[in-house]
Order: sequence, then structure tokens, then C-alpha cells
Amino acid sequence: MHFLADRMQVRQDGGVRDTPYTRVDIAVLEQNLAAMADRARARRVALRPHAKTHKSPDIAARQLAHGAVGLTVATVAEAEVFAAHGFHDLFIAYPLWFEGPRAARVAALLARGVRLRVGIDSVDGVGMLEAATTDSDRSRLTVAVEVDSGHHRSGVDPARAGVLARAATHLGLEVAGVFTYPGHSYAPDGMHKAAGDEQRALRVARDALIVEGLACPVGSGGSTPTTASDAVAGGETESDDVLTELRPGVYALGDAQQWELGAVAPASIALSVVATVVSRRVDDDGAVRLIVDAGSKALASDRPDWASGFGRCVEHPDARIIALSEHHATMLFSGGHPTPALGTRLRIVPNHVCTAVNLVDDLIAVDDDGAEEVWPVAARGANT
Amino acid sequence: MHFLADRMQVRQDGGVRDTPYTRVDIAVLEQNLAAMADRARARRVALRPHAKTHKSPDIAARQLAHGAVGLTVATVAEAEVFAAHGFHDLFIAYPLWFEGPRAARVAALLARGVRLRVGIDSVDGVGMLEAATTDSDRSRLTVAVEVDSGHHRSGVDPARAGVLARAATHLGLEVAGVFTYPGHSYAPDGMHKAAGDEQRALRVARDALIVEGLACPVGSGGSTPTTASDAVAGGETESDDVLTELRPGVYALGDAQQWELGAVAPASIALSVVATVVSRRVDDDGAVRLIVDAGSKALASDRPDWASGFGRCVEHPDARIIALSEHHATMLFSGGHPTPALGTRLRIVPNHVCTAVNLVDDLIAVDDDGAEEVWPVAARGANT
Repeated sequence: MHFLADRMQVRQDGGVRDTPYTRVDIAVLEQNLAAMADRARARRVALRPHAKTHKSPDIAARQLAHGAVGLTVATVAEAEVFAAHGFHDLFIAYPLWFEGPRAARVAALLARGVRLRVGIDSVDGVGMLEAATTDSDRSRLTVAVEVDSGHHRSGVDPARAGVLARAATHLGLEVAGVFTYPGHSYAPDGMHKAAGDEQRALRVARDALIVEGLACPVGSGGSTPTTASDAVAGGETESDDVLTELRPGVYALGDAQQWELGAVAPASIALSVVATVVSRRVDDDGAVRLIVDAGSKALASDRPDWASGFGRCVEHPDARIIALSEHHATMLFSGGHPTPALGTRLRIVPNHVCTAVNLVDDLIAVDDDGAEEVWPVAARGANT
Repeated sequence: MHFLADRMQVRQDGGVRDTPYTRVDIAVLEQNLAAMADRARARRVALRPHAKTHKSPDIAARQLAHGAVGLTVATVAEAEVFAAHGFHDLFIAYPLWFEGPRAARVAALLARGVRLRVGIDSVDGVGMLEAATTDSDRSRLTVAVEVDSGHHRSGVDPARAGVLARAATHLGLEVAGVFTYPGHSYAPDGMHKAAGDEQRALRVARDALIVEGLACPVGSGGSTPTTASDAVAGGETESDDVLTELRPGVYALGDAQQWELGAVAPASIALSVVATVVSRRVDDDGAVRLIVDAGSKALASDRPDWASGFGRCVEHPDARIIALSEHHATMLFSGGHPTPALGTRLRIVPNHVCTAVNLVDDLIAVDDDGAEEVWPVAARGANT
């Protein structure tokens, strides 16, 4: 793809970058992409990675090279960016609302030949999508019914999927199938339960379509934790497995949430924010507090209740990031251990990679020889 | 300033923007800027607003028009952006570490005539700053000693300020004075205590400079809550008041944290994220859950323990934002109240305006007649 050719090559010439910056280890990334592609092949399901995690055409191109069938995106703006970079099979896994320019934007994507699948979870939304598109546009458009598998966010009750799918077909829209996001997998011991809930919800939804006389070729699911969970459980394919497609996002880069959930091993985390120790103090009890220059504007502020802190340090995994300001992370080291000196560079793994990537214009991708490439976060801020 | 002249004027022509977008009410902003400027004049202190809140040359220009003496910034990159827009009196209130290109970047700012004050909190940092600059550069450079007033982030013990200031003067750096950030004001009932702590810490630090035979013309402090607290307490100027300069940031725009702390009245909140209800469900107990299309990539994920949720809704302040995904906010309405229909547009006030502004390229500024201007967030992402 053309954008790969003219990307700036960066040489460090022995210098160092100013911190904070966001670094990707290319070898680890490649291992992650290969492993998930293998897992999808073993389960005989399609892999359609969620690009909201990385917003990077460079990483998306590598995912397709490993056999991904297309990309998942969250917004029309992400679809526009990836389409402009040559990705023409996109699933907008979101119940879009077509008021204002969005309808024309989706029609324009279809008119230029992009194949789109769009999420639906209301009859009103279906009607607006139909009104926004021409018969010609709709030759490249399908819809998928979003169902709630326990995360209680968007998505209809799986038993209602058939009614909504029928409403779509009545309006001339082609129904590809059903999808769900088992986001309740993001909790300690949540992975296995959520993976089971996901299968059950998709099965109920598929059967609801069949009752309405509709086919359901696509059953799409798969967060990074539930995918990991399936792997833990042996990855066996049930004969009536309703899942035909996986949409994991975080697996490519990893983050501290996945590390602490046990869904991703620390050695499989490809992204970190490189930061410098800029301030240092010793508390009365001998504990050492370090301030590093990566705060919430580099790491993002995500912090689930069960997380040990606001991220994890690669070099000092036992240190706790107890506070986060915009440009300060406060790291606490218990007494008696050697601690980094002022000026030391540390790699901090953000709690949530998707929000951390959205903060920077570029990822600094490093190969095993230390050579660097700049990978633009082309869809950074493309959130509308 | 030239950038004000060629800014694109936007007409809506009766249409609507796609959501989410970040909106600023110009009249409320102007009221906030005027009120803080009046408060600073009444207290006979300089106002040097923190520009990390808005990262906007448009808003900074309005702050200077109201009498601000200059700007505070958090990073060299912010200083570079504001200098490029004609702001030439800047305080980088951060203990910079000069490894890599940063030293040359600071020297370049000084060489082009920008007056810089830079924070220091270690002898090592002072030495690196001295090494990075020439005698000529240093005619426009001062340093200020950061002291810890109870937030326990960066900053030295106030009693040690004199030793550090002396180290700086020995190296030929001019010491402007001392500064602190009373960030522990961001807690329920924290405002008054933090305001007192701030005054005490600055007084101890000033006296420590005097003991070393140094003058201390600048005593800089003032978060938005402590500034509000002073106002609540009557705003009286003590005769020996050590505070000579205020650096509030959030006051310009307001946010849900300040709203819930009682530091900013809801009517004084100038910034909100406009979002659309895209999904709707009724729970078994009659409670209604709405999903709006502004998530953590529009609002940021900041959520202190004491906050009621992940932001507040202007139109429905009693609704609770109980969950936040990247593109979904889950709003809970208790049963029995009328709730917004699908497609309704709502204004959501982010918990922390500084991190929310950093997510968008533009602010949509709206005057009392509904006319819109696009104000670039020129320093968005300028966090290194």
C-alpha cells in the first residue's frame, strides 16, 4: 500500500528522543499478530481485528498480511481514514445515528466502493440508514444486529434480534448476521463467564433470525480476554459453534489491564510509554516516590477498580503507580529495594492501550536492532 | 494576533454537526475570564493562567486581553506552540530534565526572544539547564523553585528551597522565586486546607531563600479550587501575603470535578461535549439506561473516587454516568422521570476539562446567537 513506501525513516544517530513517547516493539507485535491469526485459523473463524486499538494503517496492513479478512472500526471517521489508506472491507461495529452529515459520509464511502457492514440496535436507526443510502449503495452495505451478552451497553436482547433483522430486510437492507461485545470480560475471573455468555447470546440471536426465516451467516464476537479464555479452555470448536468471526483489538499491542487480568503475558506487551524520572523523594518510612514525566496526557486516565494502579512499569513491575496528573505519574517503591536514579528512562505500560494510542500522532516502532520507524496514528482523533 | 484574522468562520446553515464534538459557550467563558481577572486585581496578584487546560491560542489571547501577565505551560512543546502564536512570556511550571533534544529546544526559544521561567526541583536539573544555555540565552531565563505544599508530587520540601536556589545562582541562573501546586485541593473539603497549606509552604520557601541572602519576588500558586476557596473566605489580602501570582487553569472552562467540589457553579461551566442518544433500554426495575456516543475518547477517563460518575449531563444533572467505553457513555435515570428519546442531543460535562480538550483538534465556540467559530486546539498533543 502506498503509504508504506513514503513513510519517514528515522535514524537516531546515537541520540535519544525527548520523553514521553509511545514505543512499539515490532517483534512482539508480530508475534501477537501471528498467534491470534493462528488461533482464528485453528477455530476456523474469520479474524476482523478492531482497529480502534491502534488507529494505525501500518499495523492494520500487518494484520491483513497475517490473514485478517478486513477491519472493525468504531466510527465513520475511522472508516474514512482506513478507506483512504486502501482498506475497503470495514465493519462499523456501532449503532450509528444518522442525523447531520453522517448519512452523506456513509453514502460517500459506499459510493467509492468500500464494502461496509454497519451495526444496528433500533428500528429507528435502521430506517435512517435506509433513507441515507441508494439501491446502488446498498449493494455494498450489510447490517448486523448488535445484541447484549451481559455487558449491558448497546445491543438489544438477543431474543429480539429477529424482529429487528426483519425490519431491516423489509427496508431492503441485507442482514449479515449478529454481533456482540462481551465487555464484562474485563474483570478478574470475568473471562470464562463472558466467553460463555457471548456464545449463548449469539446462539439465541441466530435462532431468533432463523425463526423469522432469515439466514445468519455471521456471528461476530471476541474481545481479547474472551479470545484468551477460549485458548485457555483448549480452543476446541464446538460443532454448533455460532461464532464465525473474532474482533479482538487489544491483542496486537497489549496493556496493563490485560496483564493484570492474566489475558496477556507481560512478555507479549508490545506498547509502552517511555518516560524519564524527573523528581525523587524518600518518605519518612523509607519508601521512595519517583515522578516520571508520563501522565494522563500520555498514558490516559483509565483505571478500573481492580487495577493495581495507573499502569505498570516494565523494568519495575512491583512498583505501584499510585497517582497520575497530566504530566506526572507518581511511582511508589517500598523501602529496601534499589530504585532508579533521577534521569533514568523507564517504560510504562498504559492500563488501556486504545485510549493511550489516541493521545499521540505517531508510534515509534523499534525493531530488534533498535532501528526506529515512525508509524502515524492516522485515525487519531477520528472519533465522530 | 495574526491567527485570529484567518480563522475559518463556520456557518451552520440550519444543519447540525455530527456528534460527539466539543463545544465552548463564549459568553460563559468571557464571564469566567473577567471574574478571575477581577479577583486577581482585588488581591493585587498577577494572573498567569495555565494554558494546558485549553491549549488554545484563541482562549489565551482572551486571557491576556483581560490582563493576564503571561501564560503558564506544562511542557516545552506547549511553550513552542504558544511562542509560535505570539505569546512570549511563558512559565514552564515543570522540573524539566534536559537529555536529548529538549535542551536545544529551550535554547532555541530563548534565542528567538521568548522570556522563559522554568521550574526546578533538583540540583542535577539546575546543572543541566545551565549547561543547555548561553549567557545571552540566560538574559531571558529565570528559574523558580518548586516546593511541595502537600500534594506530594514534584517539588522539594519548602525548607530546602533556599539551598536549591543558591545552587542555581552559583551557576549563573537568575532565581525568580518559588512556586507550588496545591493539587490536594481536588478533594471534597480539600479546598480550604490546601489554600492554607499553599500559603504556609510558599512562606517557608520564601524565608528559606531570604536566609540564603536571596530575594524572592515571585510566590506563585493557585489551583482553581484554592482560588475559589480564597474567594469564599472573602478574598482578603493579608499584609504579609506571600502569594504574588496565580496560575489557575480550569477556571476558564470549568468541568464536572469543579462542579461536584463546589468550586465552580454549574452555570459557569463553559465547555461540554455534545452527544447523541444512540441506544436505550429499560431495566427490570424501571430504571432507564441510555447510551450516548461520547465515551472516553471524547470525555477522557478521569474519575476520582468521590465523583458521582464519569461526567455530568447539563440537561439531566441527576442522571448518573455509570460507565464509560471509548465511544459509549452509559447514563442511568432512576424510574418515574421523563427520559430523553433516541436521537436526543445532550451536553455532557467532562470530569476533567484539561484531558478532554487534549482529545480534539478543534473547539466549536458558540456565541449567544448560536453562531459558531472553530478554535484550533493548537497545542493538542504537545505533551513532550
